[in-house]
Amino acid sequence: MDRLHTRAAVVATGDELAIGQSLNTNTMWIADRLMAAGIETVEHVVLGDDRAAVAAAIRRLAGEVPLVIVTGGLGPTADDVTRDALAEAAGEELVLDEGALAAIGGRLRGLGREMTAYQRMQAMRPRSAACLPNDNGTAPGLHMVVGGGGAGADVFCLPGPPREMKPMFERDVLPRLRPDPARTARTRVLHAAGIFEAEAAARLGELMDRGRNPLVGITVSAGGLAVRIRAVGEAGEGGEALERSLEATAGAVRRRLGPYIYGEGEETLESVVVAALRRAGRTLACVESCTGGGLGAAVTRVPGSSDVFVGGWVTYSNAMKERLVGVPAEVLRENGAVSEPTARAMAVGGLERSGADLCVSITGIAGPGGGSAAKPVGTVCVGLARRESGGPAVTVRRLLISGEREDVRERSVRTALMMVLLAVRDGPGALEGSMRLPLAWEAPGAG
Amino acid sequence: MDRLHTRAAVVATGDELAIGQSLNTNTMWIADRLMAAGIETVEHVVLGDDRAAVAAAIRRLAGEVPLVIVTGGLGPTADDVTRDALAEAAGEELVLDEGALAAIGGRLRGLGREMTAYQRMQAMRPRSAACLPNDNGTAPGLHMVVGGGGAGADVFCLPGPPREMKPMFERDVLPRLRPDPARTARTRVLHAAGIFEAEAAARLGELMDRGRNPLVGITVSAGGLAVRIRAVGEAGEGGEALERSLEATAGAVRRRLGPYIYGEGEETLESVVVAALRRAGRTLACVESCTGGGLGAAVTRVPGSSDVFVGGWVTYSNAMKERLVGVPAEVLRENGAVSEPTARAMAVGGLERSGADLCVSITGIAGPGGGSAAKPVGTVCVGLARRESGGPAVTVRRLLISGEREDVRERSVRTALMMVLLAVRDGPGALEGSMRLPLAWEAPGAG
Repeated sequence: MDRLHTRAAVVATGDELAIGQSLNTNTMWIADRLMAAGIETVEHVVLGDDRAAVAAAIRRLAGEVPLVIVTGGLGPTADDVTRDALAEAAGEELVLDEGALAAIGGRLRGLGREMTAYQRMQAMRPRSAACLPNDNGTAPGLHMVVGGGGAGADVFCLPGPPREMKPMFERDVLPRLRPDPARTARTRVLHAAGIFEAEAAARLGELMDRGRNPLVGITVSAGGLAVRIRAVGEAGEGGEALERSLEATAGAVRRRLGPYIYGEGEETLESVVVAALRRAGRTLACVESCTGGGLGAAVTRVPGSSDVFVGGWVTYSNAMKERLVGVPAEVLRENGAVSEPTARAMAVGGLERSGADLCVSITGIAGPGGGSAAKPVGTVCVGLARRESGGPAVTVRRLLISGEREDVRERSVRTALMMVLLAVRDGPGALEGSMRLPLAWEAPGAG
Repeated sequence: MDRLHTRAAVVATGDELAIGQSLNTNTMWIADRLMAAGIETVEHVVLGDDRAAVAAAIRRLAGEVPLVIVTGGLGPTADDVTRDALAEAAGEELVLDEGALAAIGGRLRGLGREMTAYQRMQAMRPRSAACLPNDNGTAPGLHMVVGGGGAGADVFCLPGPPREMKPMFERDVLPRLRPDPARTARTRVLHAAGIFEAEAAARLGELMDRGRNPLVGITVSAGGLAVRIRAVGEAGEGGEALERSLEATAGAVRRRLGPYIYGEGEETLESVVVAALRRAGRTLACVESCTGGGLGAAVTRVPGSSDVFVGGWVTYSNAMKERLVGVPAEVLRENGAVSEPTARAMAVGGLERSGADLCVSITGIAGPGGGSAAKPVGTVCVGLARRESGGPAVTVRRLLISGEREDVRERSVRTALMMVLLAVRDGPGALEGSMRLPLAWEAPGAG
């Protein structure tokens, strides 16, 4: 067998997956592991416990890609159909595997249980298939070539439970993979915030052309954009040329998206903020209203954030804004709870009472109720107070954020984090003038 | 068009999904919504941003099932290929939809932005397709029949971002569905917290048998369990018989899982807590350490929570615990920040300073660092102080929660919410004695 695994397909079986009762996490995990090995997954399929449908999918995919991985349907019940489906796809009969039978019997004896007829079925395999031992359950995996005659595909069938599937993949599938040494793939991900997808695409321009190598793509998430760069080429000499072309494209993306780029790979906006605060030797506090604690929850998601984050206040009611951080009653009366003066007073009050070097405040109308013509739903004011020699310096931004309640709240948190990052990484000047750019949800004409 | 939607297939597109960089949650959500409408999804497919592959999948599936729903690939960039793929699958050319163009232009003007050439592309549709308006983004959806000549399938293409896709599905897809009236399915979901999956399965027993109708299944999420009940049968006479069998099984599930059940359908633990507080006319405050604001963020996710939630403190550092809510220095010194006495002092201090009727506190070691033999990672203390005539009454629980940092934090928030719910819904006695059951993460022997 010297078939190269240039591309792969992954199949997950189970009624609960097909009808949407359970989330399928297996295929993403497998695709990610294959990509790390240099093999691109081009298709995922989820099917119910339907023998004919699973057999047809295996046969179709084995004709299209040289590697097919199937999860689920190997268990000891009547709705486990993968074993029969594989035999049907390969046009082979099922035979009893004595080694697998002994392993299943041994495992059950260890648990003080008898073997049922269905459990015995788990030791059956298509004639030319090999059983893969299962250290974490009774069902062995299967490996065989489907669609021989020169081409054909390696098909691996693994158990559905992740705690059985993952060790079997690592031990019995990974070493049998043969990524194409003449054509492998490497990826990098850069993260941006504060810019709309269309504007980012316009700035990236021809870097996003479909035929380009490395290929650049954008994915939107609640808080920002992920810019994915994928280079395909020869793995020879440690893939150095590939690494260089990836690096060149990453540099071009960084130049074009400038201050919007906040991190790379596993980094998150909050982890970058915590790292920047740590490098600068500064501490942060926060005073939140409409986000209700979401900013603090985001920052403290980062292990070790206690080095730089002291805590803060959730001043959800007006009374709490007055009582806890000293927002003057007349500021609230004259400007309302959602206003630049209130955000300013919250940030300064929090700075004074926390002893931190920076304090960020958020007050806004997350909706669905509470909006007005002057202050529609999505109106959010963010304040950032900094301890300086001549007293606290404060920057306040008024934003108009579109979306549902949770979008408004999440984007408020992202904007506040981006303001902290700019001030700490690039200096307070980054919050003013032309560097106001990264606040893409800012209300038109506000400032 | 009187084609019945007896079965469906769902396709998700995106390189980030295919190569395992992002988890595909759209197809599960859609399959679940289809099932609720009585339509069984038999296949899910995930493909990269590859026009030819998406076109081939649409063509294949349109020949196999009468309803195909595609998500993703409608955005304004070069790697959005669904529009072209649909045209290719249907053998039609793309034409400009003037109504869609006007809608995109209007939306961008409202945001004070210009239309790019790519954004204009979003107004193109295959000649016989209809555009579906998008209230939450620029990309319209598409609907057309692919593979005419008697059979053929309704194909709907929806945007990838869930906040655009879901409202479009509800408004423009759901009303166009025609489930088979002779064989339909109804579902119900009950929510439980504070019980492990295996124990819930043991209690449900034969209700979970595979052949049973209604069928009962359990799905685990970060904060609890969803118990799904599905009845299949004739829709005739308004599906009354189906409704009755569903109700009987739901009653049996409620009896077997008792106080663990907190809600049903769209209800969340936080929405149920807010509703219970409102019914009881009581207000809540919170003092958080390891969760960093996550409890407040959860409660304020509920629209209208300002009626019952006043706010609170994030006392992440020891200094903030002392300074903001008056935890005595000697309590911290003698017991540590993660201890029952500290949780008690936090809850009482917050109750006094907030003026609320209840105050819940959380202090714990979320990890990965900070654990010790006496207080391993996952040790969390939750306090609940209640205003009573003779002074504050306090209940404190020490938990040992397994999992990663975010699991520990999320489960701490769920436990705290469950304690508030029990106290408000069932009375303070529910926190004591045999009714302590729902705290399934409680440390063995603690109390």
